[in-house]
Amino acid sequence: MKTLTVNLQERSYPIHIGQGLLGDETFLTPHIHGTQVLVVSNETVAPLYLDKTLSALRGHQCETVILPDGEQYKTLDTVTLIFDALLQHRFDRQCTLIALGGGVVGDITGFAAACYQRGVNFIQLPTTLLAQVDSSVGGKTGVNHPLGKNMIGAFHQPQCVLIDTHTLDTLDDRQLAAGLAEVIKYGLIQDADFFAWLEVNMAALRQRDATALTHAIERSCQCKADIVAADEREAGQRALLNLGHTFGHAIEAGMGYGTWLHGEAVGAGMLMAADLSHRLGDVSAEELQRTRALLQAAALPTRIPKAMNSERFLELMAVDKKVQAGVIRLVLLKHIGAAYVSDDYDPNRLRETLDAFHHAAR
Amino acid sequence: MKTLTVNLQERSYPIHIGQGLLGDETFLTPHIHGTQVLVVSNETVAPLYLDKTLSALRGHQCETVILPDGEQYKTLDTVTLIFDALLQHRFDRQCTLIALGGGVVGDITGFAAACYQRGVNFIQLPTTLLAQVDSSVGGKTGVNHPLGKNMIGAFHQPQCVLIDTHTLDTLDDRQLAAGLAEVIKYGLIQDADFFAWLEVNMAALRQRDATALTHAIERSCQCKADIVAADEREAGQRALLNLGHTFGHAIEAGMGYGTWLHGEAVGAGMLMAADLSHRLGDVSAEELQRTRALLQAAALPTRIPKAMNSERFLELMAVDKKVQAGVIRLVLLKHIGAAYVSDDYDPNRLRETLDAFHHAAR
Repeated sequence: MKTLTVNLQERSYPIHIGQGLLGDETFLTPHIHGTQVLVVSNETVAPLYLDKTLSALRGHQCETVILPDGEQYKTLDTVTLIFDALLQHRFDRQCTLIALGGGVVGDITGFAAACYQRGVNFIQLPTTLLAQVDSSVGGKTGVNHPLGKNMIGAFHQPQCVLIDTHTLDTLDDRQLAAGLAEVIKYGLIQDADFFAWLEVNMAALRQRDATALTHAIERSCQCKADIVAADEREAGQRALLNLGHTFGHAIEAGMGYGTWLHGEAVGAGMLMAADLSHRLGDVSAEELQRTRALLQAAALPTRIPKAMNSERFLELMAVDKKVQAGVIRLVLLKHIGAAYVSDDYDPNRLRETLDAFHHAAR
Repeated sequence: MKTLTVNLQERSYPIHIGQGLLGDETFLTPHIHGTQVLVVSNETVAPLYLDKTLSALRGHQCETVILPDGEQYKTLDTVTLIFDALLQHRFDRQCTLIALGGGVVGDITGFAAACYQRGVNFIQLPTTLLAQVDSSVGGKTGVNHPLGKNMIGAFHQPQCVLIDTHTLDTLDDRQLAAGLAEVIKYGLIQDADFFAWLEVNMAALRQRDATALTHAIERSCQCKADIVAADEREAGQRALLNLGHTFGHAIEAGMGYGTWLHGEAVGAGMLMAADLSHRLGDVSAEELQRTRALLQAAALPTRIPKAMNSERFLELMAVDKKVQAGVIRLVLLKHIGAAYVSDDYDPNRLRETLDAFHHAAR
């Protein structure tokens, strides 16, 4: 078992990573105040892990809310279902919400916890690789709006994050690949050694080698924890974590939430960011090719949907949270392992990237 | 013009109190970052003060959302209207929301600002006495749920609060009285001298004497600012500001939001708290009578609706945010000018208070 810490003064919290943590109350109960616990999960995850989770919560007043599965349900209406349950069961300010599932369950549950009675405790039990290496750490919570992804939300840190690597055994290949996109992201933005490690170990990761997966999760969480500790509210450095996300959000919104998985869209988006960085004279042709090859090795898409032409991209990117005064701010790469934020790139190069990907689309 | 400061380190902000501030850009524009401004108001206030407000915002991209007027619209659905407008106009993270109206407009707008893109700037332009002396200061934002008042919300401090006392000229008598309830509250919980001043000056306040109103607003805001600075997130002392609110929320919810004004319900609720405090052996019979007399002088209700019997009260009070582990925590009085929070009172005395008020109800 490994334990990392997200250092945020009085809001600091541990990330425990290990096998079989879900049924172990040792790591869960110290973070529950009061007796009332609401476990939020979805129709896919609950049949697999809800009983085990509840077995670690004996002695508490446990209620459950089971959501439909999918990004298309990451809406204010779904959050309302959680509020209804909390109030029907008369949950008070000392209650704890537990998110058992992937990134969508975590984001929705965290946002409900941020808003219920102006903020109650919550705990993340991420069951997908993407949630384990990215969305469960750092306190970003929220839901989508028809006009933009994650447009409604709050910063609300969990009490702890419990990562049971056994849950990856039941994850389908597509979801595993989506998680690997965010793992690759850490290599691209700040850790060239980790990128090289991933090039060597991608096959092992896809075969779910426990040692390799644990290492990738730990390294990813440490990277995320460091960045969040340095910049909790995304005043600067934290924005680097959005590499590929502005392109990716446009694909998700343009295709309809849930059609492309978030990690798939981010995978293609990172390649677009690398392509633009290459056109801007930074990333070398060899690095661009290494990026493409690693994404392909992870079984991630490296082409965009045909429906996404350049106009549609620009329109959808214009409502991204990274927009300031109408200019689309992008995370770009100097080289593998070094990213930066810019709103001062040549827009013609962006257009070339969009056109090139549309031309190659299928 | 008077200026007070709410001291909250990097979230500190000024409260400006004066005549004719609404049309004056001097106090407004320094707190607007970026160029995009959304003014949220309601159907009652907008015809009176929207043009004047917009005249102080020349040079900005100003959009407006006009809500229906009333506590019954303080819902998540109404907040969604604001999100829709922000996204339709492609407002970015640097935008500013301005709440022009009473407490309902301020609470809804502040909550929208707290959640839009995980938090954007907002400014309070309170136009009712209640909003000026209470709800616009301190960063409590939120909306109601059918099962409880202010159950969904966030702490989100404004950039500044601009109180134009001229706006009280158009306030109807019932709304003025509702605001006076919160003014009286400050006297009851911590300022016996102010309570005595109110006993002398209540007639002047009801006649809208400008000097008396300005003094009452300033004293109230200073009291609120001090308490908020000492306890921003209501870990302790700030709870005293809820005097009368647990009883009052039950009346508001029980009668249907908007039937009783919030201040009216708090007025009756404070008398119930004083009555219970008297039964518990603290507040004297004379002090109880002074409290009743001051509320009556302010034209506030001192009786409860006949429909609110003791069972209904207890049921509705049980979902209040002040509940912990099933016990209803109440703000009670030692004497005029000294309040405390308790969950250790004799519940039989609470029952006596509820029964006595129900018996006297009409």
